[in-house]
Amino acid sequence: MNITKLIKPRTIAIVGASENAGFGGDTTRNYLKFSDNLDKLYLVNPKRDEIYGRKAYRSLLDINDDIDLVILCTPQKTIVPLLRDAAQKNCGGAVVFASGYSEVGAEGQVRQQELIEEANKLGIAIMGPNCAGFANYISGVFAFAFPFEDRDRKGNIGFISQSGQIVLSGLDSPNMGFSYAISSGNSCNVKIEDYLDFLVDDEDTTVIAAYMEGVTKPAQLIETFRKAAKKKKPIVILKTGKSNKSQQIAASHTGSLSGSDKVIRAMFKRYGVIEVGDLEELMGTAAALSWLDELPQGKRTVFMNVSGGEAGVTADLAEEYGLELAEYKVETKEYLKSLLPEYGSVNNPFDMTAGIGYNTSVLCEAIRAISKDENVDAICMNYTITPEIWDDTITHMVEAVQIVRAEENMKPIFWMPFVEHTRHLESANILCRAGVPLLPTGHYACKIMKHVFDFSTLDFEDMVAAIPVKKYPVSSAMSEYDSLCYLKENGVEVPPMAVAATEEEAVEKAKELGYPLSVKINSVDILHKSDVGGVKLNIKDDDGLRTAFTEIIASCSKNVPGAKLEGVLLKPMLDAGAEMIIGVNNDEDFGPMIMVGMGGVFVELFEDIQLAPAPLSHDQAMTMIKELKAYPLLNGYRGKPVCKVDDLGKLLVDISEMAANGKEYLKELDINPVFVTENGVSIADGLLIAYEG
Amino acid sequence: MNITKLIKPRTIAIVGASENAGFGGDTTRNYLKFSDNLDKLYLVNPKRDEIYGRKAYRSLLDINDDIDLVILCTPQKTIVPLLRDAAQKNCGGAVVFASGYSEVGAEGQVRQQELIEEANKLGIAIMGPNCAGFANYISGVFAFAFPFEDRDRKGNIGFISQSGQIVLSGLDSPNMGFSYAISSGNSCNVKIEDYLDFLVDDEDTTVIAAYMEGVTKPAQLIETFRKAAKKKKPIVILKTGKSNKSQQIAASHTGSLSGSDKVIRAMFKRYGVIEVGDLEELMGTAAALSWLDELPQGKRTVFMNVSGGEAGVTADLAEEYGLELAEYKVETKEYLKSLLPEYGSVNNPFDMTAGIGYNTSVLCEAIRAISKDENVDAICMNYTITPEIWDDTITHMVEAVQIVRAEENMKPIFWMPFVEHTRHLESANILCRAGVPLLPTGHYACKIMKHVFDFSTLDFEDMVAAIPVKKYPVSSAMSEYDSLCYLKENGVEVPPMAVAATEEEAVEKAKELGYPLSVKINSVDILHKSDVGGVKLNIKDDDGLRTAFTEIIASCSKNVPGAKLEGVLLKPMLDAGAEMIIGVNNDEDFGPMIMVGMGGVFVELFEDIQLAPAPLSHDQAMTMIKELKAYPLLNGYRGKPVCKVDDLGKLLVDISEMAANGKEYLKELDINPVFVTENGVSIADGLLIAYEG
Repeated sequence: MNITKLIKPRTIAIVGASENAGFGGDTTRNYLKFSDNLDKLYLVNPKRDEIYGRKAYRSLLDINDDIDLVILCTPQKTIVPLLRDAAQKNCGGAVVFASGYSEVGAEGQVRQQELIEEANKLGIAIMGPNCAGFANYISGVFAFAFPFEDRDRKGNIGFISQSGQIVLSGLDSPNMGFSYAISSGNSCNVKIEDYLDFLVDDEDTTVIAAYMEGVTKPAQLIETFRKAAKKKKPIVILKTGKSNKSQQIAASHTGSLSGSDKVIRAMFKRYGVIEVGDLEELMGTAAALSWLDELPQGKRTVFMNVSGGEAGVTADLAEEYGLELAEYKVETKEYLKSLLPEYGSVNNPFDMTAGIGYNTSVLCEAIRAISKDENVDAICMNYTITPEIWDDTITHMVEAVQIVRAEENMKPIFWMPFVEHTRHLESANILCRAGVPLLPTGHYACKIMKHVFDFSTLDFEDMVAAIPVKKYPVSSAMSEYDSLCYLKENGVEVPPMAVAATEEEAVEKAKELGYPLSVKINSVDILHKSDVGGVKLNIKDDDGLRTAFTEIIASCSKNVPGAKLEGVLLKPMLDAGAEMIIGVNNDEDFGPMIMVGMGGVFVELFEDIQLAPAPLSHDQAMTMIKELKAYPLLNGYRGKPVCKVDDLGKLLVDISEMAANGKEYLKELDINPVFVTENGVSIADGLLIAYEG
Repeated sequence: MNITKLIKPRTIAIVGASENAGFGGDTTRNYLKFSDNLDKLYLVNPKRDEIYGRKAYRSLLDINDDIDLVILCTPQKTIVPLLRDAAQKNCGGAVVFASGYSEVGAEGQVRQQELIEEANKLGIAIMGPNCAGFANYISGVFAFAFPFEDRDRKGNIGFISQSGQIVLSGLDSPNMGFSYAISSGNSCNVKIEDYLDFLVDDEDTTVIAAYMEGVTKPAQLIETFRKAAKKKKPIVILKTGKSNKSQQIAASHTGSLSGSDKVIRAMFKRYGVIEVGDLEELMGTAAALSWLDELPQGKRTVFMNVSGGEAGVTADLAEEYGLELAEYKVETKEYLKSLLPEYGSVNNPFDMTAGIGYNTSVLCEAIRAISKDENVDAICMNYTITPEIWDDTITHMVEAVQIVRAEENMKPIFWMPFVEHTRHLESANILCRAGVPLLPTGHYACKIMKHVFDFSTLDFEDMVAAIPVKKYPVSSAMSEYDSLCYLKENGVEVPPMAVAATEEEAVEKAKELGYPLSVKINSVDILHKSDVGGVKLNIKDDDGLRTAFTEIIASCSKNVPGAKLEGVLLKPMLDAGAEMIIGVNNDEDFGPMIMVGMGGVFVELFEDIQLAPAPLSHDQAMTMIKELKAYPLLNGYRGKPVCKVDDLGKLLVDISEMAANGKEYLKELDINPVFVTENGVSIADGLLIAYEG
């Protein structure tokens, strides 16, 4: 569905236009107040000839012009007939404010389905229903139903939200400039994914901010993310987990920790999508990215304060939020020292003292010296900007920053206040227009800088996610032997093993495998083998093997009467090492997700897992392993052996490729444990669940 | 040192008063602008007869009155002579803005020491030097050197800061009302602890906010905390960790995780002191506590929204920050349902929809019903309040809250916006004066509510912390046997053991103890026994014991040539169970701190420890154990045994009492491991370091 006529209409009709309170009145007033192209606006009201002194039409059909966009301020039951009228005017887009659709239960869902079908038939892209409309600041089209603030908001942030109230909050955020602000509402034939894609392509938009509740077009979403990552156009998303509560992913033992909220987070991480926790962080991050002229080249930051106390607070905040403190080169340090009064000292955070902070030209010199230092990637000025009091320091700092920002090759500068004054408009205008984002206070400032640094330094590796083409409702578990055979056949190294249907066959197979052996029941009906006496470990010779065989068959026959027993699975005993768990969970939206963690309680009690979409590059696999808190335990921690982590990385890559290739077949895989030692990795157990049909 | 004349002076002289820029001029202007008692103010300047139209005195000695407080705006070298003049006027307090003291190195430190001695001799309490002064809003005394905002700031928050800039930030924070705001500066003969104590006693102050860099009077601080906890007067502290960097506590194996920052955090926790991370949180928390008429009785909160999207964001925030969502009683839910349009549903967070949110009287009914519900302890309204746009919802919500708050038995109500507008002054005045704190946005709002709930529900148990009377520079380690004997003699249960100097004696002692035994070298010179062949485990009979004895002595003699070998330590082998670590670290400021954690990598890699000051009550000990992330591993997690955690609690209590009693002797204790099983606890190893002299 093409949305150009919807979002960038040349001719517009407001149906239900009015001077009265309500959707019709508010929309008309907004439009007349904020829009540019008033000569291409038609007001429609069956009962009026004039509205706000403009000619009003009784019907869309009375207008002697094509209408790209109709803004429908009328109730639900009028919508389909109006769309039919609009189609006669070559209409390509409609904003539908009316509620009474999928948000009101089964009956409404039927109505929404009817609306979709009709709109598709007519070729009209619908925003809504049950939405608040949009504002196009680029060509000046304001199809928005809530009253909003009368301030110049034109800028480069494209903003989309599934909630109308949240669009209003966004429009109302300090120091934001928008290209488009879109309330997608119930999303019938145009989804939030479609708007996202539009904004990633749109040249007037350099930053995208979105509030999302759920995903309906995962494959398209990922394509949009890929496109944005390749362009390095930042996407900032606030996603509520709520709507996922009902989506229970069938969880295997380890899969319980990779529920869908974690899945989408892993997708965000893969594509450098910035995920935020609330509206303030969403807007602040988008604003910072939109004001910066260029992204920092690295993360090493110098924090400049005019108070020892505030420098201390800054140091603690930087550590808490994982910001990187730059270390000055010797020359820089010496130069800064020369600018300070005798009692001052050069640290980071840097208490400039009155000696530097109260003198614009000295401050400029200090900033220049710091910016020139090749150990420094960014600068953050830390001072509260308040509208109520006069303060020399504010004047000097703002002046200095303005001066140096106008110079060549200046590194990015941020500004963090300690007490919120909603980013004092006057100073914010000066700072932001100089390319210095005036951030919200402490927590938010640090989070935002972290987002900017992480995004700026992301080394995007374009592995195309393996998303299944369809959904498979039925699945079944394989036996351990069949599971491991599947792995082996699909490029994953598995230790030697054999199945034996009889005692004699077992003894025969043991000759090839060599003792000591583990012996387990081979039955697709028995998944928890130990519980029913189906496992014997460390069998040392033929006699032992015969006994084990007999006992296992006897015990399983007794404990699981109906089970089909196919004999036993024989495997040489492995060198125990660090026990890792590897899991695959084929997310029905985003395809196979690879999970790795350390066995025992680390995975479950400390939730120390890493999750990423398949396939993985070797670098990606190694990053997952190294980001585990338990990683030091694989790497010589306190006398432990230095394990072959590289082999574990390779195993993850192989499994991820197998999972990606098997995306229409492999539902879940639980490898628990994989032993990792100084000599390599070996899979000790595996359970695969496959789709049927 | 009595500080009444300093803080609550009846007569005041400003020395160095002036109309010009700088400390003298700013202080004079501030005083004349904001103070009440101008008839008791004397301006002093050796070169002036009149300042701002008021008589000026050439010298303090010319004033024909007693002077309680002198505000000295003059340079360092004038201070001592001026104090001598002031003393002749029965002066009891002086504010010293001058710098050039301990902040400028060794020479300054000498000057500060001279100042302290002189002031003590003259009986004058000094605020500063190198401070910004104070504002006493209760009796209207403004001895403050920085220009600040012209707004009514009288209230009930007592604010102290070691940084002048941070006082200014505090004074500048939105919606705050102060009793006193004090910049303590270098703190010479009046410390931050003295101001804290004053504010805890002060009846005009109901909430205390402090910015602290370091502690110099720990015992007094703790007494002040105890007093505040008993009165339930909240203290909110922002403490930088910086100043502690140089204080390296000699750390034993486990002690490495209980450095001084963790120690002071543990003290805060014990006394219900609210610790915050930055200025915004400091001020917001103090403001919320100061505006609430009464504290909530519990933590169960209903969040009321006017948007499904914002309700989703609220739910995620509440979960992230550990806020408790109330569950409505059936009647409440039914009643609320009756107020909603058909499509609405009653959840928490509760999307009220326009049906409730746009109608003041219906909203009042909804709030009343929720407040009456005995499953609810507090309510939080969630809506952005913006000054720039007109919004019906704001009007209705503010009106409704104002109406219901005036009624009897209404539960506490908070207000959380989504986008910061620095708590819109006009609405803030209405809300705050109705006892509804208008909080900062998301992160801060949630943190602040959490602080309020935790403080409100704190069940303070007044265990008097055991602070050593002096510091002991020298200490030495005991042998394992001596360490365990000390424990035993001091009320801590230790498994049977014996030392034997000879092979024969060992065999003799083994008869009483019974096999199997562990055998370890007994030598104060050998702490890491395994490393030098000094340990044999699981010795089963006399022969084995003889061999072990011989081998251990031989190996230790060879590997640690000079060591004094006192024979061996014999202990029956213990039932291994969960391995816990218990540590004591006698902090030189706050006395013995008790640490508990699970052995292995939990303590070090996951930093999963709990720390609290000795002595401990049984409840406190049990809370420490249960707050460990690894706690489920003691309590039947995934088939593990249910250990006697109560016995572990008793052991912690016994050790804490021993440590409290031994506070002038016991420096460090490292019990590693303690085995905890289904049958009880047993100490397997212990190492004690004791003070000498």
